[in-house]
Amino acid sequence: MNIITISREFGSGGREIGKRMADILGYAYYDKEIEIEVAKRMNMDVGYVSQAIDRGVLMNIPLHFGMTFADSYAMKQQVGILVEKQRILKEIAQTSHCVIVGRAADVILTEYQPFKIFVYADMAYKISRCQGYAEAGENLSPSEMEKAIRKIDAKRSQYHGLFPGTDWGSKEQYHLCVNTTGLTIKKIVPHIADYARCWFEGQREN
Amino acid sequence: MNIITISREFGSGGREIGKRMADILGYAYYDKEIEIEVAKRMNMDVGYVSQAIDRGVLMNIPLHFGMTFADSYAMKQQVGILVEKQRILKEIAQTSHCVIVGRAADVILTEYQPFKIFVYADMAYKISRCQGYAEAGENLSPSEMEKAIRKIDAKRSQYHGLFPGTDWGSKEQYHLCVNTTGLTIKKIVPHIADYARCWFEGQREN
Repeated sequence: MNIITISREFGSGGREIGKRMADILGYAYYDKEIEIEVAKRMNMDVGYVSQAIDRGVLMNIPLHFGMTFADSYAMKQQVGILVEKQRILKEIAQTSHCVIVGRAADVILTEYQPFKIFVYADMAYKISRCQGYAEAGENLSPSEMEKAIRKIDAKRSQYHGLFPGTDWGSKEQYHLCVNTTGLTIKKIVPHIADYARCWFEGQREN
Repeated sequence: MNIITISREFGSGGREIGKRMADILGYAYYDKEIEIEVAKRMNMDVGYVSQAIDRGVLMNIPLHFGMTFADSYAMKQQVGILVEKQRILKEIAQTSHCVIVGRAADVILTEYQPFKIFVYADMAYKISRCQGYAEAGENLSPSEMEKAIRKIDAKRSQYHGLFPGTDWGSKEQYHLCVNTTGLTIKKIVPHIADYARCWFEGQREN
């Protein structure tokens, strides 16, 4: 299967790149669908699943030990959710060509040799992009928005930190790093999709 | 003018990417031509020019002060060479669309808004690539080759360090970072060239 993972700084347009690439390539697209499936399988509320994942990340639960160190009911549940999430990602990876945005899919699915993209941009561009998406009455000032962006990215980095030997955002961990500052994402995506196609062809030849 | 700068780790294939991009796009290509022109204008030997640049970098000459702090004849000559090199790069940038490999062109030409690419690869891949290019009798062991690669990259990073506020190899300084590990460069270059074309179009629209 051809698996494309998109890691991204908040506000850089990584999600849009992922969605458009999936459309162009005819691949399945996964983003929030992962947590929805975890919630369904564990008979839980999606909001609760997302919160439990966040709490698990903050507690730095050693995922590679699985349940061994989970000594309370809440912790067991959090580890259970994180383990289920990984299981779903691996099922997806074996089902069809796909694009997965976030979810540490780049490290969780390493054995499936995904094409790993990192999307980033200058802070000023990310702030203006986020402000453009905010609904009326929801606008944050630029400095509030910057704080929010840094907080979300710190959480993403922390989640990655659960997997030893990985470093979120470090270019060495990715096959292509795309700076979207000032770009119209719709226009550049076809070229990234072509690059990805070529990358997969190369892998098959090697 | 459309200016593409290629910064690259030694052995990653950045030079080949630059040359092929220039061919595909019909742009002028500059690499060692810069030192050759410096030597010609200053009536010096090319080898001497290259050595003087290396020495100047090691001494961390503050280029932005120009001649002010150059108190010995040798130092004056080194600063003179570095300044001439910058002058030539700026002339090139105003002459025609071009691809420039290395030479800190990405920072020296910032005012001309170049499309900045960084090319990198896993160490094992760079070592095997370099060994493939070595002539009979010139082969280094993998560990010797790694040492040589790290030394050359350290020098490139140090040269960049002459320009304040820059950080060689940090993805934030570039528009696209390409990991060539395991790739056939000839095949991926057309897609990078398409991406670059699209990037320049975007800049003109903004």
